[in-house]
Parts: sequence; C-alpha cells; structure tokens
Amino acid sequence: MSPFDLVIRGGTVATASDTFRADIAVKNGQVAALGLDLGEGEREIDARDLLVLPGGIDAHCHIEQESSTRIMTADDFYSGSVSAAFGGNTTFLPFAAQHKGQSLREVVRTAHERAGPKAVIDYAFHLIVSDPSENVMGQELPALIMEGYTSFKVYMTYEMLKISDRQMLDVLSLARRHGAMTMVHAENDDVISWIAERLLTRGHTEPKFHGIAHSPLAESEASRRAIDLARLVDAPLLIVHVSAPEAAQAIRDARNRGLPIYGETCPQYLFLTLEDLDREGMEGAKFCCSPPPRDKAGQDAIWLGLTNGTFQVFSSDHAPYRYDETGKFAAGPHPTFKKIANGVPGLETRMPLLFSEGVGKGRLTLNAFVALTSTNAAKIYGLHPRKGTIAIGSDADLAIWDPAWERTITQDMLHDNMDYTPYEGMTVTGWPRIVINRGRVVVEDETLQVDRGSGEFLDRVPEPPRDQSFGDAAPLSAYRAFGADLV
Amino acid sequence: MSPFDLVIRGGTVATASDTFRADIAVKNGQVAALGLDLGEGEREIDARDLLVLPGGIDAHCHIEQESSTRIMTADDFYSGSVSAAFGGNTTFLPFAAQHKGQSLREVVRTAHERAGPKAVIDYAFHLIVSDPSENVMGQELPALIMEGYTSFKVYMTYEMLKISDRQMLDVLSLARRHGAMTMVHAENDDVISWIAERLLTRGHTEPKFHGIAHSPLAESEASRRAIDLARLVDAPLLIVHVSAPEAAQAIRDARNRGLPIYGETCPQYLFLTLEDLDREGMEGAKFCCSPPPRDKAGQDAIWLGLTNGTFQVFSSDHAPYRYDETGKFAAGPHPTFKKIANGVPGLETRMPLLFSEGVGKGRLTLNAFVALTSTNAAKIYGLHPRKGTIAIGSDADLAIWDPAWERTITQDMLHDNMDYTPYEGMTVTGWPRIVINRGRVVVEDETLQVDRGSGEFLDRVPEPPRDQSFGDAAPLSAYRAFGADLV
Amino acid sequence: MSPFDLVIRGGTVATASDTFRADIAVKNGQVAALGLDLGEGEREIDARDLLVLPGGIDAHCHIEQESSTRIMTADDFYSGSVSAAFGGNTTFLPFAAQHKGQSLREVVRTAHERAGPKAVIDYAFHLIVSDPSENVMGQELPALIMEGYTSFKVYMTYEMLKISDRQMLDVLSLARRHGAMTMVHAENDDVISWIAERLLTRGHTEPKFHGIAHSPLAESEASRRAIDLARLVDAPLLIVHVSAPEAAQAIRDARNRGLPIYGETCPQYLFLTLEDLDREGMEGAKFCCSPPPRDKAGQDAIWLGLTNGTFQVFSSDHAPYRYDETGKFAAGPHPTFKKIANGVPGLETRMPLLFSEGVGKGRLTLNAFVALTSTNAAKIYGLHPRKGTIAIGSDADLAIWDPAWERTITQDMLHDNMDYTPYEGMTVTGWPRIVINRGRVVVEDETLQVDRGSGEFLDRVPEPPRDQSFGDAAPLSAYRAFGADLV
Amino acid sequence: MSPFDLVIRGGTVATASDTFRADIAVKNGQVAALGLDLGEGEREIDARDLLVLPGGIDAHCHIEQESSTRIMTADDFYSGSVSAAFGGNTTFLPFAAQHKGQSLREVVRTAHERAGPKAVIDYAFHLIVSDPSENVMGQELPALIMEGYTSFKVYMTYEMLKISDRQMLDVLSLARRHGAMTMVHAENDDVISWIAERLLTRGHTEPKFHGIAHSPLAESEASRRAIDLARLVDAPLLIVHVSAPEAAQAIRDARNRGLPIYGETCPQYLFLTLEDLDREGMEGAKFCCSPPPRDKAGQDAIWLGLTNGTFQVFSSDHAPYRYDETGKFAAGPHPTFKKIANGVPGLETRMPLLFSEGVGKGRLTLNAFVALTSTNAAKIYGLHPRKGTIAIGSDADLAIWDPAWERTITQDMLHDNMDYTPYEGMTVTGWPRIVINRGRVVVEDETLQVDRGSGEFLDRVPEPPRDQSFGDAAPLSAYRAFGADLV
Repeated sequence: MSPFDLVIRGGTVATASDTFRADIAVKNGQVAALGLDLGEGEREIDARDLLVLPGGIDAHCHIEQESSTRIMTADDFYSGSVSAAFGGNTTFLPFAAQHKGQSLREVVRTAHERAGPKAVIDYAFHLIVSDPSENVMGQELPALIMEGYTSFKVYMTYEMLKISDRQMLDVLSLARRHGAMTMVHAENDDVISWIAERLLTRGHTEPKFHGIAHSPLAESEASRRAIDLARLVDAPLLIVHVSAPEAAQAIRDARNRGLPIYGETCPQYLFLTLEDLDREGMEGAKFCCSPPPRDKAGQDAIWLGLTNGTFQVFSSDHAPYRYDETGKFAAGPHPTFKKIANGVPGLETRMPLLFSEGVGKGRLTLNAFVALTSTNAAKIYGLHPRKGTIAIGSDADLAIWDPAWERTITQDMLHDNMDYTPYEGMTVTGWPRIVINRGRVVVEDETLQVDRGSGEFLDRVPEPPRDQSFGDAAPLSAYRAFGADLV
Repeated sequence: MSPFDLVIRGGTVATASDTFRADIAVKNGQVAALGLDLGEGEREIDARDLLVLPGGIDAHCHIEQESSTRIMTADDFYSGSVSAAFGGNTTFLPFAAQHKGQSLREVVRTAHERAGPKAVIDYAFHLIVSDPSENVMGQELPALIMEGYTSFKVYMTYEMLKISDRQMLDVLSLARRHGAMTMVHAENDDVISWIAERLLTRGHTEPKFHGIAHSPLAESEASRRAIDLARLVDAPLLIVHVSAPEAAQAIRDARNRGLPIYGETCPQYLFLTLEDLDREGMEGAKFCCSPPPRDKAGQDAIWLGLTNGTFQVFSSDHAPYRYDETGKFAAGPHPTFKKIANGVPGLETRMPLLFSEGVGKGRLTLNAFVALTSTNAAKIYGLHPRKGTIAIGSDADLAIWDPAWERTITQDMLHDNMDYTPYEGMTVTGWPRIVINRGRVVVEDETLQVDRGSGEFLDRVPEPPRDQSFGDAAPLSAYRAFGADLV
Repeated sequence: MSPFDLVIRGGTVATASDTFRADIAVKNGQVAALGLDLGEGEREIDARDLLVLPGGIDAHCHIEQESSTRIMTADDFYSGSVSAAFGGNTTFLPFAAQHKGQSLREVVRTAHERAGPKAVIDYAFHLIVSDPSENVMGQELPALIMEGYTSFKVYMTYEMLKISDRQMLDVLSLARRHGAMTMVHAENDDVISWIAERLLTRGHTEPKFHGIAHSPLAESEASRRAIDLARLVDAPLLIVHVSAPEAAQAIRDARNRGLPIYGETCPQYLFLTLEDLDREGMEGAKFCCSPPPRDKAGQDAIWLGLTNGTFQVFSSDHAPYRYDETGKFAAGPHPTFKKIANGVPGLETRMPLLFSEGVGKGRLTLNAFVALTSTNAAKIYGLHPRKGTIAIGSDADLAIWDPAWERTITQDMLHDNMDYTPYEGMTVTGWPRIVINRGRVVVEDETLQVDRGSGEFLDRVPEPPRDQSFGDAAPLSAYRAFGADLV
Repeated sequence: MSPFDLVIRGGTVATASDTFRADIAVKNGQVAALGLDLGEGEREIDARDLLVLPGGIDAHCHIEQESSTRIMTADDFYSGSVSAAFGGNTTFLPFAAQHKGQSLREVVRTAHERAGPKAVIDYAFHLIVSDPSENVMGQELPALIMEGYTSFKVYMTYEMLKISDRQMLDVLSLARRHGAMTMVHAENDDVISWIAERLLTRGHTEPKFHGIAHSPLAESEASRRAIDLARLVDAPLLIVHVSAPEAAQAIRDARNRGLPIYGETCPQYLFLTLEDLDREGMEGAKFCCSPPPRDKAGQDAIWLGLTNGTFQVFSSDHAPYRYDETGKFAAGPHPTFKKIANGVPGLETRMPLLFSEGVGKGRLTLNAFVALTSTNAAKIYGLHPRKGTIAIGSDADLAIWDPAWERTITQDMLHDNMDYTPYEGMTVTGWPRIVINRGRVVVEDETLQVDRGSGEFLDRVPEPPRDQSFGDAAPLSAYRAFGADLV
C-alpha cells in the first residue's frame, strides 16, 4: 500500500520565508512529508520546472451577496469558487452581510445555505456588521466569534451600511475583548455625498465623476480616523482596499509606531486608473468601484506599500456586477455615477496579475508574493497554520504554477459568471496549472476536477486580547492611571 | 491750541516687528504721529521705563452668552469688558451664538442689545453657527458676512451645537466664496460620549474624569479631520483652543505644506494640568473646560507651538461660570463631570501670564508677545490695521505696561464677576498700568475711567476668496481638470 | 527753520508687520517722525501712489573679493554698491574672506581699505573663516566679534575653503560663547568631487555637468550634518543659498523642533533651472553657481519655503564673474565645468524679481517681502533696529517703490560691472524710484546722487549666548547631567 | 540500513514564517525530510516539548582579531565557536580585518589559518576594508567578492580604520557593481573626538564619559550620511549595531521610501544603559563599547525597531576584552575612557536574552525571533537557503530549545574565554539543549561533542546588481537623463 495519497515531485516549493526543491507528500488531505525522494503516492504529479506555492487565499470577495439596493452579485458560490480555483486559490472569504434590521445569526445561516452546496474550495465568512444593535452586540456577535466567525467588516460610508464613530468604538472594543479582527471600509461618507450632490447638481453624471466624488481625501481622512479609534481602545484593525497614497501613509505611520494596524490593497489599484472610468460612453462603468482607481502616482505609492511592509494582504475585492441590466445598469441604461452598481471582478486574475508584474518584473520576491496572497491573510484571519503555507500538518492546499505560461487575459478564458474583465487584453506570464485543495486536485488540464459543494467551511479560533504594551503608549494606560479600565 | 489730544512720552514702543523709543501722539482717537519730541498734547502721559504695546485683542471669549443648557455666563458685557480692560485689552470678540432653530440675524440683534449699552472697550462678534439651515446658509450668513460679521465658529462636539462633516463642508465652502474665516472647536463628539458613558456606568463621576473623557485623541482626530475638510474646499480654517500635542502637530503639518490653517491656544494649556482637575472634593470643577488641561509634556508642546509658528493667536476662551449654583453647580451640588458647567475665566490674566512666563522667562520676544496677543488676531479676523498695532492711522489702542510690576494673582484683584480664578496665588511680573482705547484712557491708577457703553462695535470687511495655488496642490484642481468647479 | 531735513509725504509705508499711509520725517539721517501732515522738511518728496519700504539689505554678496584661484570679482565696492542701490538696497554685507594661512585681522583691514573709499551705501562684513588656526580661534576671531564683526561663514566644500566637522564644532561653539552667528555653505565636498571625477573621466565636461556633480543629495546631506553639529553645541546656524527641497526640509524639521536654525535662499533658485546650464555652446557657464539651479519641482519647494517660514533671508549671493576671460573663462575659453568661475550676479535684480513674482502674483504679502529682503537679515545679523525697518530712531533707509513700473530686464539697464544678467529679457512689474540711505537720496531720476565712499561701515554688537531650553532637548543637558559642560 | 543519519522526533519546528509539529530527518548533513512518523534514523533525538529552530547565525563578532592598537581578542576561533555553539549558534561571521597598508588577500589568508584548525561550527568572513587603496579596490576586492567574500564592513570612525565619504562612495559603488553587501559602523569621528578632547581637558576621564563622547547625535548623523551616500549610488547598505533612536529612525525613513537599507542591533542596546558605565570604580569599563548603551527610552526605541521592521539582524557584536591587563586595561590599570579596550562579549547569551525577553514576554513571535537571529542574516549575507532555515536541502543546522529552562547567567556557565559577562545575574527562561551543525551534534548534555576544526568555511555567491527602480527615485536616473551613468 502506498504510504501517501499523493506525491508532488521535484517542484520548487516556496513559503513566505523559504524556497527549496522538494517532493511534497499528502495524506488525508494534509501535508504529511516534505523531502527528497519520498515514498510513492497513489497519485504522483511531476512538478519539475514548476513552482509549488501555498494555495491562494482571497480574503476579500463578495459572493452571492445582495447589495443594499438588492442587486445580487453575478457570481454564486459555485461560479465564484470555480473562478477562484482557476486563479490558484484554495480558500476564499466572502462576506455574510448584515443589512440594517437583520439578525446576524440569520445572515450567517443564509451564507451557509448558499455556500455549502456549491463551493468547490474551502471558505470562511467575514461578517459585515451594519446594525450593531443591542442584540447584535450583546448576544449574537460575541457568540458568533466564539463559534469561529472571528472577523468582521464595518463601513464608514454607504447610507445603508455605515456605522458611526461611536458604534465603531463599540465594535472595536468588543473585538478586543473577544479576540476578533475588525476590517474597515474607510471613506468619509459626508465628503463623498457632498461632492456627489454638487456634481449631480451641475449635471456631471458620467462614470468618471464617481472617481471625483470619491476623493482621495475622503479615504485618507477616514483611514486616519479609523486608526485613531482603534488606538483609543488598543484594538487591531485592518483597512481594506487601500487606494490613496495618504491612506497608505496613515497605515505606515501607525505601523512605524508599532501599532497593530494592517492594510489590504487590490489589483484595481495597481493596474487601473481614473482614466479607465473616462472611457467612451458608459464603458467607464466597468471600472466603477469604491474606492476608485487613482492615477499613476497612486499606483506607484501602492506598489511601494506592497514592498515596504505597509500592506500585508492583497485581495481581489471581487464584486461582480455584469455590464448589463442585472448589474451595472440595474438602475437603467444611463444611470448617473451614483446609480452604477459598484465593484469590479477579479477572483481569477488577482494572483496572475501580481505574479507577472510583481515577481516577474522583480518588484517582489516569490516569498513576498506568497505572503501577500496567502500566508499573511491566513495569519491575520486565524486560518494559520491550517491554511496559508506548505508545512507539515497543514492542509495540502497547493497551487502548481507554470512561471513561463504566457496568457492574454480575456473574459472568455475566465470562469466567473461575468461578461467582462477590467483586464481584458493584458498579457501576463505565469499561471497555475494544477490547483489542489486538501489533497484534492481541483483544477488540472484547464478543467475543473471536483464536484459542487466539495469545499469545506473553516471555523476559526479567536485570539486572546493582547495589550499593545510594546508599541505606542496606548491611551488606555492613561485611563488606567486614573483607575478607569474602559474596554 | 494743542495739536494733539494726547501724547504718551518716552515709552518703549513695540509692534509685532519692531521695538523703539518714541512719543506717541493721538488725535481723534487715532495714532496721529510717532516721533521724538512731538508737540504738546492736551493730555500728556509719561511712559519712561514703561512699555507701550498695542492694546490686547481677546479673540475668543464668552460674554453674556447662554449655554445650550441655558446657563448664563457670570460676566455680562460690562463686567467682561472691564475685566478685559484691566488685563490690557482694548478689543474683544465675544460670540453671537446661534442655538438650533434660531435665526442668526436675531442672535446678532440680541448680541448688540447686550453689548451696546455696557461694553467699555471695542468689540466685534464671531457668530456661532450651530444650525446651518437653508435660510441661514442661503440668506442670513452671506448677508451678515457682507455686513461685517466675517468670522464664525462651528463645533464638532456638544450635542446641541455640533454640525456634521457635510455641514462643515457647506460652511467652509460658503466661507471661501464670501471671504470669511471659519473657526472650529475640534473634538470628536462620539469619542467623548463613548468614553463618558463608560466612565459614568462604572461610577467614575468626579471632575477629573472630564479630563479622561476628553481624550487628546478626540481632539487630534477632529483637528486632522477639520483640516482635511478645509483642504478639500481650499478654505482657510482656524482651530481654536488647542491643547493636545498631536493636534498642534496636525496644524504644524498643514502649515508645513503651505495650507492656510491657523491655530489658537489659551493660558489654561500652559499653566494648568489634569492634576488640577483632581483636586480635593469638587474643587476640580473650577478647572473643567473643553478641551481640558493636559499634562506637563502637553504644556511643553504648547509652548513649542507658540515659539515655532504653529499658533498665531493666544486667547482666553473666557467662559465664566461661578463656583456656585449659578455656574459650575447649576445642575446640583454634586454633578457628574458631564453636568459641570464647562469653562474657565481668564480675560484679565491672559496677557500678564504670558508676558511673565513668556517674555520674562525668555521664551518669547516682546514682538512675538504682541503678535500672539494682538496683531495676528487683528489680521486673521479682519480688524487690521485699525486694531492690533501702533501705526499711523490706527486706533490709539494702547496698553502701557510696567514690566517690573510684580503681582500675586487673587480673585480679589480681578474685575470680572467670578468668584474664583484658576491662577489664584500665582505671582507674575509685568502688568498694564494704563490702558487706552481710541485715545480714551480706560484704566489708570487701578481704576476704571470710562462709562458703561463707551466701547464701540467694529464691523469688518470680508476678504476675497483666494486660490491656494502656491501651497499644497489643492484637490480642487483635480476637479477642475475634469471640468467640475465645486466650490 | 524747517524742523526736518526731509519729509516723504503721503506714501504707503510698509514694515515687516504693518502697512499704513503716513508722512515720514527725517532728521540727522534717522526717522524722526511718522505721522499725518507732519511739519515741513528742507526737502520734500511726494510719495503718493508709491510704496515706502525699508531699504533692502543684501545679506550675501561677494564684492571685490578674490576667489581661491585668485580671480577678482567684476564688481568692486563702487560698482557693487551702486548696483545694489539701484536695486533698492541701502545696506549690503559682503565678505571679508580669509584664505588659508591668512590673518583674519589682515583680511578685515583689506576689506575696509577696499570698501571705505568706494561704497555708496552702508555695509558690514561677514567674515569667511577657512583657516581656524589656533591664532584665529584663540585671538583674532573673539576679538573681532567683540569689535562688531559678529557673523562669519564657513564652507563644507571647496578644496581651499572647506573646514572639517571638528573645525565646525570649534567655530560653532566659539560662536555660541561669544554671541556670533555662523553661516554655512552646506555641500558635501566628497560627494561633489567623486561625481565630478567620474564625469570628467567619462568626458562629460560641459557646463550642465556642474549641475550633475552638485547633486541635491550633496546639499541636503551637508545641511542635515551642519544642523546636527549646531544642535550638538546648542548654537544658532544659518544655512545659506538653499536650493534643494530636502535641504529646505532639513531646516524645516529643525525649526519644527524649535531649534535656532535659519535658512537663506536666492533668486537663482526661483527663476533658473538646470535647463539653463544646458544652453547652447558655453552659454550655460553664465548660470554656473553653487549650489546650481535645480528643476521646476525644486523651484516650487523654494517658493513654499519662502511662504511657510523655512527661509528668513532672501539674498542675491551676487558673485560677479564676467562671461569673458576675466571671469567665467579665466581658465581658458573651453574650460571643463570644474574650471568655470562659480557664481551669478544679482544685486540689482534681487528685489524687483521677488516683488514682481512674489508680491505681484500673490504669493507673498508686502510685509513678508519686507521681512525677507530686509528686516529678518537685520535681526539675524545684529543690525536691527538701526537697519531693516521704518521706525522712530532707525536710520532713514528707504526705498520708494513704484509698484506699477514695468521693466524688461537687460544688462544695459543695470549698474554693476557685469557683461550679462541671468535674467535677461524677463519683464517685472515694480521697481524703486528713489532710494534713500541715512536720509541721503542715493538714487533718483534713474541717476546716482551721491559720491563714492559716502556709505558707512556698520559695526554690530554680539548677542549673549542663550540656552535653547525651550526648544528641543539640547544634548548639552545630557552632558551637564554628568557634570560636563563642554561648550 | 536506516534511511536517515539522524531523526529528531516530535519537536515544534519553527521557521521565519511557520510553526508546526514534525519530525526532521537528516542525511548527509542536510535536512532530507520533514514529516510525521518519518522512517528511522541511525540516531534519534526526542524533541517532544522542545522547540526546534534553525541554528543561530551570529552575523557580527570579533574573533581572534587584533585591534588597531594590537590587542588580541580574548577569544580565538576555538573558544569563540564553542561559546557560540552553546548559545545555539551553528554559524558565525567574524571579520577578516584589514589594517591600513595590509593586503586584503593576506588578511583573508590569516583568517583562514586561524579559523580552519579551530572552529567547531561553520563560518564565513566579513572583510573589513580600512585601506581602499588602488590595489585593493582595483584588484583584491573584486576578486575576493567573486571568490565568495561577498560582504565587507567600513568604519566612519576610529582613527586607524575610518574611511572618508569619498572612499565610501568608491566602496559602495564597487559593491553595487559586483553584487556585494556593505556594512557600516556609523559614528561621526570628528564629533566623538571633539567631545572627547574637551572631556579629557576638563579631567573627565572615567568610563562613563565614553558614553558621553559617543553622543547619539554622532551616530544618527553618520547613519543619515551613510544612507545618503548609498542612495547616491543606489547600493544596498546595512548599518550595524544601532543604538540611538534617531539612527533607527533614519533607517526606518529609508525603508519607508523603499530603499535597500538594512539595520542591525545587539543585546547591549536592549539590556544595558549608560548607568552601567557609571558603576563603581573602573567597573564601567566592562560596558564600554561603541556605540555605547543609551538610556531607557533608547531601549524602548530599539525594541520598537525589532518589532516594526526597522532591524533585520540581531547580532552580538561580540568583542571580547577581558577585565584585565590583556583587555580592558591593556593601556594601564586606570586608563582614560579613550584607552579602554572597546567591546562587550555576547556570543553565547545573545539568543537566550532575546528569547526570554522577546518571545517569553510577548514582544516577538517565535517566527520573528528566528528571522532576527538567523534567517534574515542568511538572506542578507548570501548564506540562504543553505543556512538560516529548516527546509529540505538546507544544512541540518538546528538548535533544540527548552523553552522552560530557567537559567541565571553567570560567567562560570559560559564557554568563552572571558572573565566577565555584562549580563551577570540576569535570569532568563529558555536555552538550547542540543545544537546540531550539518547533522553533527555539537552540543548536548551541556557538553561539547565535536572536535576542534570541525566547522566549515562557507563561501558565498555575489548577487547581481539591481536597479532600485521600484523604490525612491534614485539620483542615478537623473545622471542618466543627462547621459552620465556613473556607477
């Protein structure tokens, strides 16, 4: 009897730290051995000349999720997970999104109902907390954290989602007490609304004005404010989809002071600009997302943030709305920029784009690529060491990349349920040939190899609260000096 | 016939720039001549061994003003102006404060009714805009600016006064269009409320917890936010009563970038600390003001800001509530820190304190003292060159200081209507002997020399909007690039 | 008998702080009175519609000075002072420059011999200390400071002039002890030499390579180093002719910390760029000065520094070498960039350029213009209040400007002894009509009105050393804590 | 036949990225397999409840090295390597130090002669370049780099070692061209000499004045300067033994800009202070090293730098001079602070101190500890992936730590040839039980298990020069724009 279920032979293996040549043996869905000339496996894969990386973790995507205006994303858990898999991912973290008035537990139940029968790769849920009612804060959220839903996102903008600074302090201090991670969409809602109203009043309705209304100052202001709120209660915080140089600088400043502030960015801020929103006719609608793509200098600042430690997580923020009346034009064929469904797709292209332009062009080491696309998210969101690395006992989540595979991106070749990709026509070098999740070959020969619903839900363990006593003097200590422990 | 109404002989005259020995001749209430051996005056004052400085301008004080909880300040325009005069001031700028629902014009009318018959020195009003309704923004405020009420204050905290970020953008852009100056009380209301609620819940009700609730982070966060809002619409902004080092840094950062951001601080942030709020019994209530006094390091940061150009204006923020049931204890004899009337007096002590500790101890030049206590406020608030300097054609507003006069501050010696001073027992060196307003001797021989109501109202001229094209790239230019001039 | 020697009637008078309409009466060379309708003067000047400003002080110019390679400047004290006067200056501060081995006292004697019979406006000398020998440091320099030579410049570059960091510490601590002001030419000599050698080795000899060799990093590095040395001994320091944005930032950082660090910049860094060094043929030689003009972004940074308080002094650094074999080409007709005489002229154009582009274009207030071109230099170099302002008892040094006089700059119209101006063809608006020094009309009707040698030497009084106890914690206190007072 | 030479069973294995439970199998001195239940080894070690970490790399130590004053270190390659091994190290990098006039090749030959017969663990040499003569720069150094001596250190201080800025540019550009790494001892020599001379003149000779002479400003100034020189030629640079907060900030600033600047710090800056230099009598001499220990605030800044990414390398800077006439007192029994031999020992205590106070107290993760003490040095100095990690094909360099082993440090228990340790009496928790180098058990049962000279020399491969085109705009591009590629 073969000792191993699967052996991947002779590949160049990379983790967030190391790169080495080795066989990888899988048993019971886990990495059982790394070595040279390991024993036989029931199945063997020849990985010579290929890279064997930890399966990607897309830590930010919207799947089978209804917007606050009740538009459903084009991708459900099947198409979404398939597309993710073809892009080298073995785990993704969609949202279980609360709308105002909803029970969080109900929201979680719905998410499971949707994901369970369809997902082909593993998944966990970030909660979205838009209504921190007494019941939610006092009962549901603490219980859900204990049950393994250890991360949640809050919004500082969008009429139907945003919470106040005071509610954010409630959320952050609850997160601190219970060992959860808070994510924040940081844009100042008042600023955006104020500009938008003026633009509309003056008849500036085209897609490009979405980019004007979402001023970089709206983002950097809210980012600094969110960081200050987190400092106040000594809680960790991750700022998602950072696009503006000053917002990146805000995160950098906090990290320079030793604070537990984290940052995420996305492909759209490296590869698109505001010029794209200004394309002919309504074409710009394809690139409307929040925050919007910025300019060339902004792209440079985001690249810098990926190389100098500002950003830990590189996600897609996949928010799939088709370029038709089910998506971008749900409000009609010529919506003002305020009525265009917000978001761009990117589950499948996220890693190849970064690999090609980052690793291929010498901006990032292979190890940094692994960290940014997989390991760091696993660590920050409580999935490590089960996910995010290639180590003994970890899930055998592997993406076997052909670093020389040159492909020109077209919507045709992608597996999501979209009708466009923002990256149409871009040529990249490097793409996964084989994708393995818990030892199961999910993608091979450009073909899906597994059944609907074969992905698994991942529960997580909250991290005990910690005192940031080695970083910047937390204001908490000031309270304590006066006998008032507030959090 | 004497050519001059008054000649002050042989004093050492100082302006914001220069110090020189000269006679000063006054005619028709204005400085008619400066020189050596000027012709005779009807009246002559010997100023040898004395300093002749521009009369002080207290640019921030609350006089005969009702709080949002309807507590009236202890000082009316008589006691307030008398006290100011004894402290070397010849002009003060109380507030015409709108409460929600009130007409601004009504508020201004009331202010005139109160001030006109009582004030003994000259005055102008800052408006307080707490309800930027359509009528206020569309009609009253633009009209009042044109009529000479060219400055107004908004609040980011206090339930009854605060305006939203969006409203602040409305106010700032209106100020830009009409050439007015916006002042802001910058504290994050949510932060303060959140901490306060927790403190009260835990039974922490003593005065010192006022200082804990008003976290320095609440101040610095709001300061950065206000600056960002002003940047967005390219409008000037003055942040009042700065107490926190990081808030001072926020102003400094903006000024380093060439932005028209100004800062004010007050004696309470140089000479008091949080320790004072922690005095025996309810005594701490005497020192409750917002923002609260901080610590020794905070005092150092504020001194630094006075010397390195961060702050342009040094005001009293005189907010006189007696240590009795008409003031501090209007809500009862043992109020929680939330119910203690907020504010400290300081009209009369403001300049002697800064003179003694600033000029006397070598921290400030005499010219910097003049600039901080008089000239800069005159320039920023549209009173210059009529007020704030000693120059030909300027009003003959003069404070003749005896730099060697050593006095120990006690409430007894002061002329306001208070029953305490926060600086009781402090010894200072230097105090005005004679104070002259428009050539009228207001104070002499430690006695008031003028009648009630002899002060005059000062109207002002709005400044045309200016484009900050030489400072930091204003975001406005980005809008314009897209054809959208928003402000 | 007329009470006054001269009365200037009805002009708009400006100081560093104020602007007002007044007559100015002069007696015995000093301002005797300011007022409305002053008594008669023996001479009267009608200044209606004109500006009456303090005479300019050019605080940095090379006049009748031999370079270390023994090239004499094209201007002597006659042509230099005449040109300065026509540009609105009433005082200038050339250098008494020590070459290695020379006695400082001898150098000063020579400077007097050269200046006394020729200068038509007032003057003082900055010393240049290039050889801080035991005799110089122990005897000559302390004595000269006591005699009124209270400022001196040191070089961090130029083989024949530069002093070491250790010698700079000696100079700075001597300056601190004796109350003098140190100026520094801050460029890293090794960096420049290293680049230059490589350029020459590769055959890059054209003028533009002067600009490449003098890298902005050479300047910013040396500026930071000089500031650190001054911090170490708690001495004031002024960095001359700042051209690089990072060098400006270094000064700004120091001032933000409250340190007594000052900065000077010059017209060549506002109005020229490296492109000028790349003009046809050898033409670029006309623009070779050190540091060299930078680029457009550099100009913006320098303008920002003039408006945000980084720079206190705006000087010409007039270093006149003709575009012929007596100057630029003293080493031959086609010198490498290392052999081109270094410097640009600018005595006469300095103020009109700044007035036109600064005041005229709204970048600077008239008061800021006065401060930058006159008052601040007077204060920093110990000439105030005798010079640098219009105040009772000050010297009657006045420049009466016609703010509407439009002139196109050509070398023909200038009064120096040069054969080119770098600003040829530029049109400016605003130029002095009448220039008065100690009550003497020096320039009027575009004609010189005084005799050679009618200028006077200005001696100065050293300032007592002061402890920067209110700024950044000086390292000296650390020494003192250990019982070691080093300076 | 056993498939493996050695199997370590059941330990908790940690790399710079991951922590997992696994057996480690060793064959031919390399890690052959990682897995669960691996096959048998000829030898088996039970590591349950123990941590298995990559062997430490001490990247900075002085072994069998003569100082410029010809004092030989107390440790030779035998005692040094034994002590290092007992402290958990399997590789160390002493210096092959050139004194002025010496041939580098000769120096390297001597190093090999000394190390080869004695070292018990693996080693490489950093060169010290103190005399960059034409022969050294043109011939020896390029050849030595090609042969695998790919790192070298230069000094900005010490009369006999320091090189000029210009020489440093030569060294840095040579390093760039040939793919080597430059290390720098950054202290401003002039500053130190200047202070020291004054101290000695005033009779301040005690050890503590060493700490005064080596002002933090001397360190931060030189650090900024070195970084600027590296920026100029676009070369990587590592600043060794950083002690001063501002020097750490300089590195941080550079890294924030994306520059390839690295930093190293040492135990003496975390666990000692200037107070130690002020101990009774000459005892302070034991703590004299350069830079010197600073104060408590400095320690905090260094800890912050270890956690926020400022420092990549944590080394001992072991410089063993005994507290007797062979070491500290080679110049006599009561030397002035200038004559005390400089340096502290620390090979054996480096990692236990950091483990106990860093990992044990929650300041550092276990993975960060591995990175700082081993992996990062391997990467920066070209030893990775052979050294610095536990990965397939890497050398089996393993330190098996008992995280619960509490030990009180005394000189008695250490294995170097010193007569004191600066950490005498400190209690730490965590120490290696077994240390393995290339599969050879070097230390076990508190006993050395290998022979003299059984360590191996490690040659390295230079890294091709890279263009920092993704970080801060390198000045090189400016040169290139003008057609001048200088480096």
